[in-house]
Amino acid sequence: MTIRLYDLVAANGRALSPFVWRIKFALAHKTLDFETVPVGFTEIPKLCDSKYKTVPIIEDGDTTVCDSWAIADYLDATYPDNPKLFSSPQERAMCRFFDSWYGLEIMNRMFSINVLDIHNHAREEDQPYFRKSREARLGGKTLEQFVEGREARIPELDRALRPMRAALASAPFLGGDRPNYADYIALGGFLWVGAICTTPLLATDDKLNEWLDRGFSLYNNLGKVDRYPLSA
Amino acid sequence: MTIRLYDLVAANGRALSPFVWRIKFALAHKTLDFETVPVGFTEIPKLCDSKYKTVPIIEDGDTTVCDSWAIADYLDATYPDNPKLFSSPQERAMCRFFDSWYGLEIMNRMFSINVLDIHNHAREEDQPYFRKSREARLGGKTLEQFVEGREARIPELDRALRPMRAALASAPFLGGDRPNYADYIALGGFLWVGAICTTPLLATDDKLNEWLDRGFSLYNNLGKVDRYPLSA
Repeated sequence: MTIRLYDLVAANGRALSPFVWRIKFALAHKTLDFETVPVGFTEIPKLCDSKYKTVPIIEDGDTTVCDSWAIADYLDATYPDNPKLFSSPQERAMCRFFDSWYGLEIMNRMFSINVLDIHNHAREEDQPYFRKSREARLGGKTLEQFVEGREARIPELDRALRPMRAALASAPFLGGDRPNYADYIALGGFLWVGAICTTPLLATDDKLNEWLDRGFSLYNNLGKVDRYPLSA
Repeated sequence: MTIRLYDLVAANGRALSPFVWRIKFALAHKTLDFETVPVGFTEIPKLCDSKYKTVPIIEDGDTTVCDSWAIADYLDATYPDNPKLFSSPQERAMCRFFDSWYGLEIMNRMFSINVLDIHNHAREEDQPYFRKSREARLGGKTLEQFVEGREARIPELDRALRPMRAALASAPFLGGDRPNYADYIALGGFLWVGAICTTPLLATDDKLNEWLDRGFSLYNNLGKVDRYPLSA
């Protein structure tokens, strides 16, 4: 049976959520068929009897699951004979650490660079909600004020990415010889950027470009989608 | 047979190397007996027919192995029936990422705070070597110049530790319910600090103190050694 995955999209149709992206990779990793249902920001609270406020949400038969970690755990528990997302509780714990690091040090910086771009690419009917909810987190600044001088944040992001470059110097994927959930988390962040960010964040000779290309090629080119350039 | 582990020590006898500390925990994790042989900085190149320049070094019968990752892999390969250090290649890859992160973001900051303390605690005969080799990395600064204003680096270290705090908010160890090699890497860094650093680096209410106490208590209180306070 095909799993249904609700996917947050921009006005241009590009997939917008780094958290949905990691679940697309997770579903592909587990060789599970899925179809995506594109929704805008303001449609999410109306889905599934209004039970949830964020994506990803999956519908698998009569079961709905919201939240990327809950979905990942559901998939390993429900489909134990398919390739595992987590080879062991220890690997899962380390992926949780990776998620914490990537969220705090990488995605927060990406957000501080691209939040106005997200707004401008959101469906017109979603833009007022997006502005209001995000500006509430920005300590009284408008989106425009918040991204002022954003170019200066790119070197900070570059520096924050050093641990990934170091790990990827000795293995093709964060998971080692093969990609694991940490790769999917990190690829999702860059696919989010690629959907909307009008400023390239990486240098053309950044070694991460090779890993991104390897990652986007996985599962029949799942991540090879229409996007802005990530490097320049 | 008892494994011999060469251990770098300060003038006060305290174990000085974060990389040796992770191997002590690794040996204990694998339930292997070991004895430590205390050496100073300038003795290391004379050990084992002068084959190596750094610790940790282990002697296991006729086999000598240098470098913490090489030793960890040797232990899992040579003693496969003892508790594994790495449950899977994926967990090992994630521990390599953790090591990259911890080295770049945490240990580098610890070094920038405590390098003069290391010098001052080294055996008298080791101090000239330590000063010369470390000042060669400091772009022309003396150790004294390099640590000037070090108090200002403590908030940066505090901020850099956020991903560890986030991961440890949902599990007792970085490895999840049980400690893994990432815990040993991180505990080793704090034991290095505790051996010589005269400035406490953590707030007393830092949640990391609870994890440190759990970690130091492992394996019959392996990490409960004489040290400076880590928090204040």
